[in-house]
Amino acid sequence: MSIGPLPQISDVEAAAARLSGHAMKTPLLESPRLNDRLGGRLLIKPECLQRTGSFKFRGAFNKIVQIPDDDKSRGVVAFSSGNHAQGVAAAAQILGLPATIVMPSDAPAIKITSTKSYGATVVPYERKDGNRVQVAERILGETGGSMVPPYNDFDVIAGQGTIGLEMAEQASTLGTPLDVVLGPSSGGGMLSGVATALGVVSSDTIVYSVEPAFYDDIAQSLEAGRRIEIETGRPSVCDALLVEMPGDLTFEIMKARVTSGFSVSDDDALAAVKLAFEEFKIVLEPSGAIALAAVLTGKVDIQNKTVGVVCTGGNVDPDLCTRALNS
Amino acid sequence: MSIGPLPQISDVEAAAARLSGHAMKTPLLESPRLNDRLGGRLLIKPECLQRTGSFKFRGAFNKIVQIPDDDKSRGVVAFSSGNHAQGVAAAAQILGLPATIVMPSDAPAIKITSTKSYGATVVPYERKDGNRVQVAERILGETGGSMVPPYNDFDVIAGQGTIGLEMAEQASTLGTPLDVVLGPSSGGGMLSGVATALGVVSSDTIVYSVEPAFYDDIAQSLEAGRRIEIETGRPSVCDALLVEMPGDLTFEIMKARVTSGFSVSDDDALAAVKLAFEEFKIVLEPSGAIALAAVLTGKVDIQNKTVGVVCTGGNVDPDLCTRALNS
Repeated sequence: MSIGPLPQISDVEAAAARLSGHAMKTPLLESPRLNDRLGGRLLIKPECLQRTGSFKFRGAFNKIVQIPDDDKSRGVVAFSSGNHAQGVAAAAQILGLPATIVMPSDAPAIKITSTKSYGATVVPYERKDGNRVQVAERILGETGGSMVPPYNDFDVIAGQGTIGLEMAEQASTLGTPLDVVLGPSSGGGMLSGVATALGVVSSDTIVYSVEPAFYDDIAQSLEAGRRIEIETGRPSVCDALLVEMPGDLTFEIMKARVTSGFSVSDDDALAAVKLAFEEFKIVLEPSGAIALAAVLTGKVDIQNKTVGVVCTGGNVDPDLCTRALNS
Repeated sequence: MSIGPLPQISDVEAAAARLSGHAMKTPLLESPRLNDRLGGRLLIKPECLQRTGSFKFRGAFNKIVQIPDDDKSRGVVAFSSGNHAQGVAAAAQILGLPATIVMPSDAPAIKITSTKSYGATVVPYERKDGNRVQVAERILGETGGSMVPPYNDFDVIAGQGTIGLEMAEQASTLGTPLDVVLGPSSGGGMLSGVATALGVVSSDTIVYSVEPAFYDDIAQSLEAGRRIEIETGRPSVCDALLVEMPGDLTFEIMKARVTSGFSVSDDDALAAVKLAFEEFKIVLEPSGAIALAAVLTGKVDIQNKTVGVVCTGGNVDPDLCTRALNS
């Protein structure tokens, strides 16, 4: 079965134009002191500063803004553990569409509260029952609305890809090429978009995927050359990244453009949250910090290199952040 | 006695040129959700993201880079409760000058450790003895080095003024004029620099000063039209802002360009730290959050206005941040 067309650089550029004035162009942050310690140049893309506290707003907005006028009143539906939920809710609110979000009942309180604050209706489901797709489809059947998939979608991938465009442009302003870029992966929507953009505007950049330990389906799939499904169910502090299998669309892109994948432990993710707090003065959730964790634990050689790290989100409950700060 | 020339817009612009490539051009952050709640448009200038975690790097670099070559080897001396210390230490390190910093023995551990990490020698003094100036002068006598004053200095004021230049430029990019700008004040170096810049590039902007409760020497001085010295010694969570009197140079500028001053309680400062964490995903120290606190507590009317708020620093000990998050 064909998976349909893959987004190209022109699709990412078109997304960037749509997002202009709505999404924030997050800066690149740098700590010369940390660079000295690591022996390389680390450039952080802090998507925690993005509208809704994560990069997910980019893809959601790029998708929703293209819904035909006739379909808008029927609204949008999404399922999400939290960051995509907020991205969809905020984008729908700006564009005037009703939004219904199916969220796991154990999602961080801050993410549920925040999703509701953007005017969305939140429908809970039990994560262990794994029935989020069915719940979403039932609502779609009732409303006739449009689904906003979390990652395996042409327009969502193109929207997330704007991160890669910005990173290449900002690194160029700093006068340095990006030797390496690392980003967290769940279904691979962000990383496949970023890899699509970098593949054209910064074609020498090596791209790596980072996942939580025991949720390394992308690393395994890249190694095997085909999509691998893993067993889920283990607890993890990385609540945004607990996916069992890459998307077919995202994997098709990553197979061609992402070199390989790393995985990091809960403790390493929490240590990266702490470092980001102390050194960059930004708030990260553990899921948003794992690519930074991969660098800090030496999983990739950054000696004398310039390394871009996407820090994807900051929607962390204060208690978990306190735990990270005390770790 | 003449206080000498006041920095003009050309001096701030010259500082901006010197800082280019060394200081970070921090973004303006915005939360549409918070804007809705407040009924106005709030634009945050997060100087916690600045090199060394506070705006102080700007003034320190602008001062030190202008020290004549013949004097450089004798190094620089500064006294500071912590943020100026780090700014001076980092700027001196970049420019290759030895730095000695006189710091109160009760300064936050994170600030002392960080100052040392930039290669500076830290000399402690007892805050209650009030002898920081004498300690600094003794060291100057021994080394023949150059003093880098924390605020009451032409080049330091011009350097901090680059914040105002950037805010006006960034607000203009957003298509909105700045109706009001608020910033924290200690000796007034930052705010007098910002007011100098805005007075020319955004001359309709009303500028307010914000201080911690019981340390409102600038508010009192602006009210009286002359420099008022207050009694210090009360404990405050705003360790960076415990000054008894505005500088003569900074007050001369503020008298002409700053409308008046507000003060905020410790609790309100901590609540602003929490809000910045949750809503903007940035780490602020209480001192860095008080201008935000003034807005959140309704001290200034922001209905249908665009209000710029300088959030000056993020060098907070994790325990104090945890206290804010639990408040």
